[in-house]
Amino acid sequence: MSAPVVILVEPQLAENIGMTARAMANFGLSELRLVAPRNGWPKKGAREAASGATHVLDAAKVFATLPDAVADLTMLLATTARERGQMKRVLLPAAAMTEAAERGANAEKVGVMFGRERVGLLNDEVSLADAIVTFPVAEAFPSLNLAQAVLLVGYEWRRAAGLARPRFTGEIRAPQATREALLSLFDILEATLARAGFYPPQKREIIARNMRDRLHRMSLTDQDVRTFRGALKALERGAHRRPDDAS
Amino acid sequence: MSAPVVILVEPQLAENIGMTARAMANFGLSELRLVAPRNGWPKKGAREAASGATHVLDAAKVFATLPDAVADLTMLLATTARERGQMKRVLLPAAAMTEAAERGANAEKVGVMFGRERVGLLNDEVSLADAIVTFPVAEAFPSLNLAQAVLLVGYEWRRAAGLARPRFTGEIRAPQATREALLSLFDILEATLARAGFYPPQKREIIARNMRDRLHRMSLTDQDVRTFRGALKALERGAHRRPDDAS
Repeated sequence: MSAPVVILVEPQLAENIGMTARAMANFGLSELRLVAPRNGWPKKGAREAASGATHVLDAAKVFATLPDAVADLTMLLATTARERGQMKRVLLPAAAMTEAAERGANAEKVGVMFGRERVGLLNDEVSLADAIVTFPVAEAFPSLNLAQAVLLVGYEWRRAAGLARPRFTGEIRAPQATREALLSLFDILEATLARAGFYPPQKREIIARNMRDRLHRMSLTDQDVRTFRGALKALERGAHRRPDDAS
Repeated sequence: MSAPVVILVEPQLAENIGMTARAMANFGLSELRLVAPRNGWPKKGAREAASGATHVLDAAKVFATLPDAVADLTMLLATTARERGQMKRVLLPAAAMTEAAERGANAEKVGVMFGRERVGLLNDEVSLADAIVTFPVAEAFPSLNLAQAVLLVGYEWRRAAGLARPRFTGEIRAPQATREALLSLFDILEATLARAGFYPPQKREIIARNMRDRLHRMSLTDQDVRTFRGALKALERGAHRRPDDAS
């Protein structure tokens, strides 16, 4: 599965390039191409901003022109914030990366272009792309910085590539309680509450049923049942103990 | 539809809080709560880092403790990168925001907690939450900065809330060509190529059919058909013109 190539067109600030490398590494992208970086490359400050993702910077390829940078790609996307008067498909990042992942699964090389810090991509540059990617930002605050745009694209690619999994799980680690254990807990709970005088006259059945619903919602494990049984026992014992009894 | 509240627990750096406000505004979040910000609030430098999203900072509420900050919420999520030994659901941002949007659609108030720059959230703080949100980052480079984490949550919320639409469309703006116009183009193309001697003997039908397939793949509009017809006419005219003819 080939991951997309990130292409920065005439990037200017060392910090942006470094943070781009970091954002790429966060989501498993590693191939960075720089087209005519302003004031040359390498740039002082990029490595520090890359915060550990210097391997991306070290492997970055520099090209004099955009056609050179994209020559080997079979699918090219252009990130833009503004309408460009081109009859080109406009995709949100999720849809764009779904396609990119499909192409990548066929060993195709896909690229995503990001433009200059101030003016973005030129129309002629956008015209080299199959489709536009735009971010679903709020109208009132539409500007993302370069590294954030790369981050969102990387995030969506990782999901589309089926690699987005939590790095750990919580959830129920103990086995679920059997119905027998559960019914036994219900009996113990209801009997204990009855002995404690909890139920108003004639209300026991309805209150008990509602309580069972609450317990069902918890998807109780064996351990949960044991803990609740122990707590009920302790509560009943504690209720019968006089304050000055030894425990 | 209520958008989630962003809760920063003991945030330290003015720049991070400002960039958080900006990231929130990018995706339509506006309610920020700060729990015991280190070295007080407001902080010099936050407004500048907010880059226009100062309304979020101005409306931010400061709380002395986390229980105070989350008292009115009916759903609370905790962002963590590390496993916490808690039997709690672990959700990726998309699933978490799908639930948050459902709750928000019922006018419930949902909160998402983000921890300290260095140590994140404490276990006791995580234990106040219904579920954990973790980001599907690459094992080798798992660290996102605070504003990036907020950005991804905001991005996913906007999608889950059905607000993620391209701010513009490209696509085919002219009407699709009718079948009649398309067949007429096929005829003109094939006749022009035949006159130009393009087809090898006995290959005309198969080559012509393959060419039709290519044109079908373009989903030609009326304008496309007219343009191609004009181009074919000009090519044929140009082929018959002698180099020194006036045009």
